[in-house]
Amino acid sequence: MAAAHKHKMILALFTLNLCYQICLSSKPNFIIMLMDDMGWGDLGVFGDPNKETPNLDTMAAQGMLFPDFYSANPLCSPSRAALMSGRLPIRNGFYTTNAHARNAYTPQVIMGGIPDEEILLPEILKKAGYRNKIIGKWHLGQQPQYHPLKHGFDEWFGAPNCHFGPYNNKKTPNIPVYRNAEMIGRYYQDFVIDRKTGESNLTQIYIQEALTFIESQVTDKTPFFLYWAVDATHGPVYASKQFLGKSRRGLYGDAVSELDYGVGKILNKLIQLGVDKNTFVFFSSDNGAATYDKGHGGSNGPFLCGKETTFEGGMREPSIAWWPGRILPGQVSHQLGSLMDLYTTLASLSGQQIPTDRVVDGVDLSKVLFGNYEINRPLFYYRGNELMAVRLGQYKAHFWTWTNSIEEFKRGTDFCPGQIIENVTTHNQVNQTAQPLLFHLGRDPGEKYIIKPGSSEYKENIGPILTAVEDHKKNLIPGEPQLNWCDDAVMNWSPPGCEKLNQCYTAPPSKPTKCVWNH
Amino acid sequence: MAAAHKHKMILALFTLNLCYQICLSSKPNFIIMLMDDMGWGDLGVFGDPNKETPNLDTMAAQGMLFPDFYSANPLCSPSRAALMSGRLPIRNGFYTTNAHARNAYTPQVIMGGIPDEEILLPEILKKAGYRNKIIGKWHLGQQPQYHPLKHGFDEWFGAPNCHFGPYNNKKTPNIPVYRNAEMIGRYYQDFVIDRKTGESNLTQIYIQEALTFIESQVTDKTPFFLYWAVDATHGPVYASKQFLGKSRRGLYGDAVSELDYGVGKILNKLIQLGVDKNTFVFFSSDNGAATYDKGHGGSNGPFLCGKETTFEGGMREPSIAWWPGRILPGQVSHQLGSLMDLYTTLASLSGQQIPTDRVVDGVDLSKVLFGNYEINRPLFYYRGNELMAVRLGQYKAHFWTWTNSIEEFKRGTDFCPGQIIENVTTHNQVNQTAQPLLFHLGRDPGEKYIIKPGSSEYKENIGPILTAVEDHKKNLIPGEPQLNWCDDAVMNWSPPGCEKLNQCYTAPPSKPTKCVWNH
Repeated sequence: MAAAHKHKMILALFTLNLCYQICLSSKPNFIIMLMDDMGWGDLGVFGDPNKETPNLDTMAAQGMLFPDFYSANPLCSPSRAALMSGRLPIRNGFYTTNAHARNAYTPQVIMGGIPDEEILLPEILKKAGYRNKIIGKWHLGQQPQYHPLKHGFDEWFGAPNCHFGPYNNKKTPNIPVYRNAEMIGRYYQDFVIDRKTGESNLTQIYIQEALTFIESQVTDKTPFFLYWAVDATHGPVYASKQFLGKSRRGLYGDAVSELDYGVGKILNKLIQLGVDKNTFVFFSSDNGAATYDKGHGGSNGPFLCGKETTFEGGMREPSIAWWPGRILPGQVSHQLGSLMDLYTTLASLSGQQIPTDRVVDGVDLSKVLFGNYEINRPLFYYRGNELMAVRLGQYKAHFWTWTNSIEEFKRGTDFCPGQIIENVTTHNQVNQTAQPLLFHLGRDPGEKYIIKPGSSEYKENIGPILTAVEDHKKNLIPGEPQLNWCDDAVMNWSPPGCEKLNQCYTAPPSKPTKCVWNH
Repeated sequence: MAAAHKHKMILALFTLNLCYQICLSSKPNFIIMLMDDMGWGDLGVFGDPNKETPNLDTMAAQGMLFPDFYSANPLCSPSRAALMSGRLPIRNGFYTTNAHARNAYTPQVIMGGIPDEEILLPEILKKAGYRNKIIGKWHLGQQPQYHPLKHGFDEWFGAPNCHFGPYNNKKTPNIPVYRNAEMIGRYYQDFVIDRKTGESNLTQIYIQEALTFIESQVTDKTPFFLYWAVDATHGPVYASKQFLGKSRRGLYGDAVSELDYGVGKILNKLIQLGVDKNTFVFFSSDNGAATYDKGHGGSNGPFLCGKETTFEGGMREPSIAWWPGRILPGQVSHQLGSLMDLYTTLASLSGQQIPTDRVVDGVDLSKVLFGNYEINRPLFYYRGNELMAVRLGQYKAHFWTWTNSIEEFKRGTDFCPGQIIENVTTHNQVNQTAQPLLFHLGRDPGEKYIIKPGSSEYKENIGPILTAVEDHKKNLIPGEPQLNWCDDAVMNWSPPGCEKLNQCYTAPPSKPTKCVWNH
């Protein structure tokens, strides 16, 4: 009996090992679902009282929830550049030195973009035989040399810039929408978002693009990387007709519901095609909810402030990992994670090396995903060229505090509506370096209670953070800043393919000026 | 084939009906788990980032989650009196007229208590053959005539007042702990809470009391009502040794974890004894988290302010209904619910009538629980003798706003730490009746964005609320206020049973004075 049992055990282990070998031999597919301005608190599983995300809640129940996962920056372009490059914006150049600690991004007047020297995630995966597609917003530069197909992607459906203007104003070109290397139309004139009703079928198009891509890759038996960078929750928020007016939360909730529906459609497609057990899916968002949107934006749950700030509301993201059969269901990981980790993790899972000639900030989360291991590592909160704060374990230290200028605030831009914490939500840039503000995020996720500098808790926990900062700064070689110069001439006047649509416009003469970044 | 199918259908319906008859013939057991000062945001399923309530999250997954469920009052005693009587404190007398819109409760100097005229839930259930037990905090009056066994309970283990003082100070009697009609010891001298470490084994005792009671009732085949009124999350917060220091949230989290453990033990006991399919369990809390506890209390998630206030943080409670086989798993109900509804619902489920000679505020939630039906009803937010706010559907109107006085605030008592909303979180009592502040809680759960009074949204939605107020006030007969008079002589000097313990102390001469309520 005992011998038979032992025999069975060995057989089981052998089979498991065999399966493991086979699994490894077939490279896993990857899907990164990156939301735009969606907040930590926008998902039912993260506490939205309206509980309108059944598909994401199910995804979490079947996978691993990350309540302590962060973007690399509180603003879209730098956050996305960091995700693609595995490196902080201060290294990859997605920042400005025009003024101190300013958020900068890539409106269509920007001259810069992702430098060729950066080795992007799709470039690494291409070497491993992957076919890479981006659907949605790129945001790493609108000039052709910066486009996705020049940086490792094989396919693109989407736009280089945001859809928040120009709104068909005739003076400046509407943002083009690309299929691969050529534009196929422009926002508002061809791809409509009704700014009165919020109606647009863009999310449905993005869902269908994803399903078609997945189907074709499965048919081709080619491993794929899909970067699903949808933007319905970025203002102007939109949803298609069948979702409009359905949410308890108004238009913003309609948009969330439609994206949730899309997540369900994509995961079900993987299951239906039988590739779910060979596909790693990660859901997250590019930065915190736009709390300044006067109640029409998303929710950052119990966290302080939102987008544009280095408080928790600005950078903590609703994150879920899903891989049936590899990631055990119903897990919660308190790993301090960063979107940059996806770079290193996906490279590792595809069997590729990450660059060794530069600092890569992302860490490989494989052990976390498959073994619920916890890696001790600091997280750096940058705003432009300044290291504003650092988290290590449960402690977070602010070296600089700033919401926005009192002038901007008085003009009605409030990054922290309803929230005022003395000496914390400051309206001038306060250098706290001499005595960093320390918070314990476990018992105080809202960063309300400054730990007394004289206390033993402060003394015990500030030291390791200061050491982490020292180590970080020692190895820091800032990249050439890409977001300093603006020029009307580089706008999307005549994108590739414009001639086929009769949508080529004449650019004005080049007149580079330093971009003005208010925040 | 069609005929056979029809035949099977009829048989199935017949069997279902038979089962329904049998189910009804055996009266269901009831358990109300009422937490003390636990906030809406303290459970993983309601978005606590630390995700430390696996048993409650499982309870929700197996039952029905109520994100829009409320206490009848933002303070403990009135909230509990309303739960027991099914009636608002303004009717049952648990309020004060000493000053306008003041929260009042039952410290041991209080002279009043639950009036005999109030017909409490256990009195109704007793008529249906139930055996009723309360474990934990009573809080409806510490004088013997107000005790649980005088008002329908068969058993009691717990205390009449809070455990937050006196702390063994020798000048005033420590709060007694009762077993049924007699005290068996006192807090701090016999039932220890170490205020330095937070250690106490009280929750373990309360858990064991519950398990023993359930076991004995199942053996006796008597339907039971268990009111599990535990208090570890009320300051001074406590946990037993095996939970101390384990939570990511500090001591408060330790207490939550231990209560969550207790919930798991109780539900598992029901399953193990095979009575889970005949037991309706409801989990909730008596009021919002004590946000004034300077970061050592609970979380009200995305809601405004906390305990003592009529903002959402003060009265929205983390609520879950559980009844395997009767309540379908994984449901979310947005029913506007009140703890008072449990009175009417449990009476209905036990086959009893509620009193018809008075207004009962609780509504029967059976249709909601078993059919996910939604009942349209207003909710009234009182503070003392004033109707502060009303919610109807997604809209909430504030008729009065107040946090606390500027004097109290300057002394360091902050009911809304970190939260300041102009014209909303006022430090004087502001009568907004002429133009009530209107909020849409679906898109603005934090009550940050006042809907413009001139807008069509305002005009369309204020009317039904004003009508609800009119209807409410028309039928309102305020009860004799019970919380006006205080007297040192009524303290727990010589509770029943003190003589057996040699713990009878001499009361001072009676000297009734009007109680002072600051908030």
